[in-house]
Amino acid sequence: MLSSYLPLLKWARGYDRNVLAADATAAVIVTAMLIPQSLAYALLAGLPPEIGLYASIAPLLVYTLFGTSMTLAVGPVAVASLMTASAVGELAAVGTPEYLGAAIALALISGLLLMAMGVARLGFLSNFLSHPVISGFITASAILIAMGQLRHVLGVGIEGHNLLEQIISLGRHLSGINPVTAAIGVAVILFLVWARRALAPVLIRMGLPDKAAGSLARVAPVVAVIATTLIVWQFDLGAAGVAVVGDIPRGLPRPALPDFDPELWTALLLPALMISGVGYVETISVAQTLAAKRRERIDPDQELIALGAANIGSGISGGFPVTGGFARSVVNFDAGARTPAAGAMTAIGIALATLFLTPALYYLPKATLAATIIVAVLSLLDVGAIRRTWIYSKSDFAALAGTILGTLVFGVEIGIAVGVLSSLILFLGRTARPHIAVVGRVPGSEHYRNVKRHDVIATPGILSLRVDESLYFPNARFLEDQINAAIAADPAVRDVVLMFPAVNVIDASALESLEQINHRLGDAGIRLHLSEVKGPVMDRLNRTEFAAQLGGQIHLSQFAAEQAIMASRAAA
Amino acid sequence: MLSSYLPLLKWARGYDRNVLAADATAAVIVTAMLIPQSLAYALLAGLPPEIGLYASIAPLLVYTLFGTSMTLAVGPVAVASLMTASAVGELAAVGTPEYLGAAIALALISGLLLMAMGVARLGFLSNFLSHPVISGFITASAILIAMGQLRHVLGVGIEGHNLLEQIISLGRHLSGINPVTAAIGVAVILFLVWARRALAPVLIRMGLPDKAAGSLARVAPVVAVIATTLIVWQFDLGAAGVAVVGDIPRGLPRPALPDFDPELWTALLLPALMISGVGYVETISVAQTLAAKRRERIDPDQELIALGAANIGSGISGGFPVTGGFARSVVNFDAGARTPAAGAMTAIGIALATLFLTPALYYLPKATLAATIIVAVLSLLDVGAIRRTWIYSKSDFAALAGTILGTLVFGVEIGIAVGVLSSLILFLGRTARPHIAVVGRVPGSEHYRNVKRHDVIATPGILSLRVDESLYFPNARFLEDQINAAIAADPAVRDVVLMFPAVNVIDASALESLEQINHRLGDAGIRLHLSEVKGPVMDRLNRTEFAAQLGGQIHLSQFAAEQAIMASRAAA
Repeated sequence: MLSSYLPLLKWARGYDRNVLAADATAAVIVTAMLIPQSLAYALLAGLPPEIGLYASIAPLLVYTLFGTSMTLAVGPVAVASLMTASAVGELAAVGTPEYLGAAIALALISGLLLMAMGVARLGFLSNFLSHPVISGFITASAILIAMGQLRHVLGVGIEGHNLLEQIISLGRHLSGINPVTAAIGVAVILFLVWARRALAPVLIRMGLPDKAAGSLARVAPVVAVIATTLIVWQFDLGAAGVAVVGDIPRGLPRPALPDFDPELWTALLLPALMISGVGYVETISVAQTLAAKRRERIDPDQELIALGAANIGSGISGGFPVTGGFARSVVNFDAGARTPAAGAMTAIGIALATLFLTPALYYLPKATLAATIIVAVLSLLDVGAIRRTWIYSKSDFAALAGTILGTLVFGVEIGIAVGVLSSLILFLGRTARPHIAVVGRVPGSEHYRNVKRHDVIATPGILSLRVDESLYFPNARFLEDQINAAIAADPAVRDVVLMFPAVNVIDASALESLEQINHRLGDAGIRLHLSEVKGPVMDRLNRTEFAAQLGGQIHLSQFAAEQAIMASRAAA
Repeated sequence: MLSSYLPLLKWARGYDRNVLAADATAAVIVTAMLIPQSLAYALLAGLPPEIGLYASIAPLLVYTLFGTSMTLAVGPVAVASLMTASAVGELAAVGTPEYLGAAIALALISGLLLMAMGVARLGFLSNFLSHPVISGFITASAILIAMGQLRHVLGVGIEGHNLLEQIISLGRHLSGINPVTAAIGVAVILFLVWARRALAPVLIRMGLPDKAAGSLARVAPVVAVIATTLIVWQFDLGAAGVAVVGDIPRGLPRPALPDFDPELWTALLLPALMISGVGYVETISVAQTLAAKRRERIDPDQELIALGAANIGSGISGGFPVTGGFARSVVNFDAGARTPAAGAMTAIGIALATLFLTPALYYLPKATLAATIIVAVLSLLDVGAIRRTWIYSKSDFAALAGTILGTLVFGVEIGIAVGVLSSLILFLGRTARPHIAVVGRVPGSEHYRNVKRHDVIATPGILSLRVDESLYFPNARFLEDQINAAIAADPAVRDVVLMFPAVNVIDASALESLEQINHRLGDAGIRLHLSEVKGPVMDRLNRTEFAAQLGGQIHLSQFAAEQAIMASRAAA
């Protein structure tokens, strides 16, 4: 029991020197990758650079306690940072203490929501962020993020609330581009794109093992950070207008509960829910993918609790919302991490960097960080997935396209809302109209099949309908409509038989619909029968008056139903 | 095509003198019933009495054009009037022009919403107001309405935003009761309760036919209206503090579009949606019940358009929201109405009353109207339905109880929201966890059955799962979790076969989940197979790379799958 809430108790038992060595190696590589990323994503969220570092310490330690994935790396990620900027930007101006306070509160609220959902085992709700919606949202977010970072890469001001306005603003400000900044930014982008494609093969040719080469290639941003920092420092490019990270306060964050401001919390509730949902879906799919490779198991509801705890940890240590990052987790996995202890060691690495490395980052150009973001998010653009969705299902594509357009034109929150609502309505529309087949008997057998697909015999005066779905409130009235239409169309009908082999549940609404159907058919002189009702469904019906009020009978098989009806007619 | 939007074109063709006589008879009876009701429901909505009359003219004429039910009687009803009072009361004070304007705008907005939903064929959305939610909501509304009307019956002021506050307020004001008003009110209640139970049998004993007696008994409120009006006038009881209806402006309403006030319309959007939803559900269930008795057919989507048009008609003629009333429609039906023309004639009757009868209503005591409302709504309390729901399904009961409590404590809007959200979450929770059975072969056959229920043979190293539900985004990830758990539990598994005889749809999310499952199983050295995939599902899969990427094969039957796997193992 306790170990299901604290998975640490399970994996810590087998912890030995070998595992420690593996985890430590992975932690060194992930730390090197995470330092520039945490600074960059703080920049993307509109926050001071140290907030990115803070969000990479406590959350990782907390996840080590509660997480069920052996290799997931949590921390700041691109999409959640964009969503933070969007939510907090509506409430305060970048750079103000209110902006920072709201970002911290957002982490805390997200954490509480995630944890509450985990305890209530509501993880399934995240399924309502369907794949097309997530795919469309991430693609649109990547475009928005890349566009936003161009400002730093080019050293120019870009305004605008949506993509179009930003493009126009960029066009207007083209003459204001800072050439030195742009040179650094573009050079870093080119270097990172090259490293992503060609560095690993080069390292392999130099004799490194495949996995080590792949992991090292992911640390290319560190090379760019060091190189550009040295260049700016050496040639005093700050004087040439190159924006640098500047002073980062040294020292670890002090744990503190943010003030509870009911108005602020209310305003942040919906954004927090969206960040939680998107973050959880990303986290769980990365964790599942990595766990399956080693036949490990993750517990989706416990992951909610772990991610929630990580965000609460971020909030009370002055950080912003965190989730499980895809690229970082893959690096952690490939570098050989065996347990969540690798995450705790990464946290120690970041803490050491926060204590001792920050002065060295003074001359780090913002353009370098922006360039690393752009290269990272462009890999999130998945045009192939969009094309495949179009080919596979037009209604799924509609949800995807709606999400992309909504996000690009109206921003992340409306984009997600459009996606979720449109896919939910499409789903409910589908579920509200279950397949109901008129069936007839296959000649020479006791089997009944759809009259539209098979050559079968229908007995005059008997309407037999097979319902291919459980009956509950979304489709209860549809059944009423279908039966009303069918008996209005055929005045000869004297008996209606509903065949229920595929009906697993009849809820109270559907029961009332069946009572209505029975009552109305009775008024029109028609008897209602049921056949092939499953055991658990029958048990429930027996608690009601339904069987007693039924105009006809409940038969074990459709064949028995028809036999009995013919016999009763012959007797009458 | 045109006649599906204007059903009038269909039924008007067979219109003759016999039908005319039947419709006219019904119209006379319904008019007599509707005059006091329309005044009473205006009182309940906090509106001047003539607004009730206006809402009983244009909407009925409009419904005659668009309605598909031959016998539905639209007009003001109790629950919609309460909802109007609740929505408008938040925006303006009773008796102000703003209050009246908001009520009129509410009718117009509801009408536009209903019509838009009808054109978009979104009628199925109303199914999400499940029976338990509607049942709980109507019961709670009846209690709130009855409590609110006590004020008029007792001639005393009662304040409070919820039931408890109102009861306390009533207790405090007991000494202020106006004895004459209370005498009239209580007498009318007793008379109406007696009439409801015993008048029809008395009339039958006096020689009237059953149906006529039933219809006449429903007109008992008219007797109460005439008697109490005469008494108040004769004994000048207005001077004794008996509140009377007073001056009602004579003359028909003039059609006018209400001013468009964006702020007001935004505030009314959600209440309008709720009134539309509840009103439509009431309307459609009355219409279905009556139509089935005569084997007539109604078109649920066209009914949305008709009810929408009726509300637009109400809004532009100065009325408030209308719906199909249960009691009134039954009277119309029993009195022999054959076509919607009966409604048009009722409208003419109410118009004549508005022109010529209003002076006679000056001395009508408000206590009489309130008493008719109380007796009418108490028949909506359905304790039996609540008990039956408790016995039948605890989760349905939870939705019902939540709706009642939410409505009584927080008011109608929150009550409905609680009900809809709780039943939706219960439904989504159910749908997100479909039944997935591990199957094995029935000895001596080629059939496969659930290993938990049958004595079957499972081949070592093969995990066969039957999925008893279509696969789409709400349950896609559940399948991933189940398979991950199953293979983590049994390290001997080398092949997984998913049996899809009950899978009617695989949406893009589920396809991606299947790809993930295949990919992860492949990483763990396990092959994924499918069996018994339905034709339309296979057609879609063939548009993708899925079959090519599949670790295993797609087999026609589960038996063939096992044979092929065994053969491939023997060959290896």
